[in-house]
Amino acid sequence: MQIAIVVFDRFTALDAVGPYEILSRAPGAQVVVVAHRRGPVRTETGMLGLTADKALAEMPSPDVVVVAGGPGQSALMTDGPLLDWLRAADATSTWTTSVCSGSLLLAAAGLLRGRRATSHWLALDGLTRYGAEPTGERVVFDGKYVTAAGVSSGIDMSLALLGRLAGDDVAQAVQLGVEYDPQPPYDAGAPDKAPAHLVDALRARSRFILT
Amino acid sequence: MQIAIVVFDRFTALDAVGPYEILSRAPGAQVVVVAHRRGPVRTETGMLGLTADKALAEMPSPDVVVVAGGPGQSALMTDGPLLDWLRAADATSTWTTSVCSGSLLLAAAGLLRGRRATSHWLALDGLTRYGAEPTGERVVFDGKYVTAAGVSSGIDMSLALLGRLAGDDVAQAVQLGVEYDPQPPYDAGAPDKAPAHLVDALRARSRFILT
Repeated sequence: MQIAIVVFDRFTALDAVGPYEILSRAPGAQVVVVAHRRGPVRTETGMLGLTADKALAEMPSPDVVVVAGGPGQSALMTDGPLLDWLRAADATSTWTTSVCSGSLLLAAAGLLRGRRATSHWLALDGLTRYGAEPTGERVVFDGKYVTAAGVSSGIDMSLALLGRLAGDDVAQAVQLGVEYDPQPPYDAGAPDKAPAHLVDALRARSRFILT
Repeated sequence: MQIAIVVFDRFTALDAVGPYEILSRAPGAQVVVVAHRRGPVRTETGMLGLTADKALAEMPSPDVVVVAGGPGQSALMTDGPLLDWLRAADATSTWTTSVCSGSLLLAAAGLLRGRRATSHWLALDGLTRYGAEPTGERVVFDGKYVTAAGVSSGIDMSLALLGRLAGDDVAQAVQLGVEYDPQPPYDAGAPDKAPAHLVDALRARSRFILT
């Protein structure tokens, strides 16, 4: 089972590494980080580099596609090699998935038309532009399309996906292996839970992400 | 504020990238992935490479030290350059922290003697060997030493640490930014919650990690 995790310059690290950590523990899974070209790809802060081990063109038909999000995607939302690759890979994939605003890339490729989908809470409205139906859920399955909410939700998405791929026992063993028994010190992880002034501050700061 | 995330060959990706994702969002934080030498460092599966941007020797006195864990650490538990570096860095650090079995490296360096600490549930007993007092908690603060349980717990640890470093407002804004509102599809993330046969299977398989 080939799993392609798609990244690009100025991606968000945890969008990619959450799913890597879960899915790489599936028996027989080959997880490969892919980007436009091989080599180091930096996150949006510039402070972390991940190695793309294959160019997109070298992995045309993975079984599972996982697209990360991040500020760098704004340069990729109009037709170009990444959207072309997503459409081609989707033609033969078993599962086509995204984390965070990565769902906007799937949507811009035309893959989420008429489908229920989610995204980072700040990017959710953008889905309607491409004919998708945004939901406020953390993980959304619609046919073979699986989308996750912001950044950390890729962990939840991947565990749910792993259950479908390999069964509940494997998924639970992986959850136990990564000791995913979350105990956040605050309860501010969603806009309906966080203090209003922080929600407003993030909204004010976020415009650049989507335009 | 300089934050060093310490990795090594065959580390666990999420141990390092969870804290990166949280701490890199702190105002004024400079997060640097460090290893024995600069360049790509591979995870225990070999399927992911992270770039070490500095060698340990190039970053002798970070304000915050975060040590990842992973199977590769078994080669590093006896005296050598990494333990030497940890002792030296700890002499001037504001916070010395670990994720997963990374706490065994801090302990092996002699930094957790007589201190309460935690680790991956499979590695917890190993702490006593070095005079630390293991607890079953997910995140343990003891003075300037902060240890986290397995893999994913680095996210909880980093948020709690960020609260101390930058205040509750900043930590909550970061939690909201990474939409950390966990909703695991199973409740199997700790040995007292997972099905017993899975706990036994992981225990049987894990011996290699610690010897």
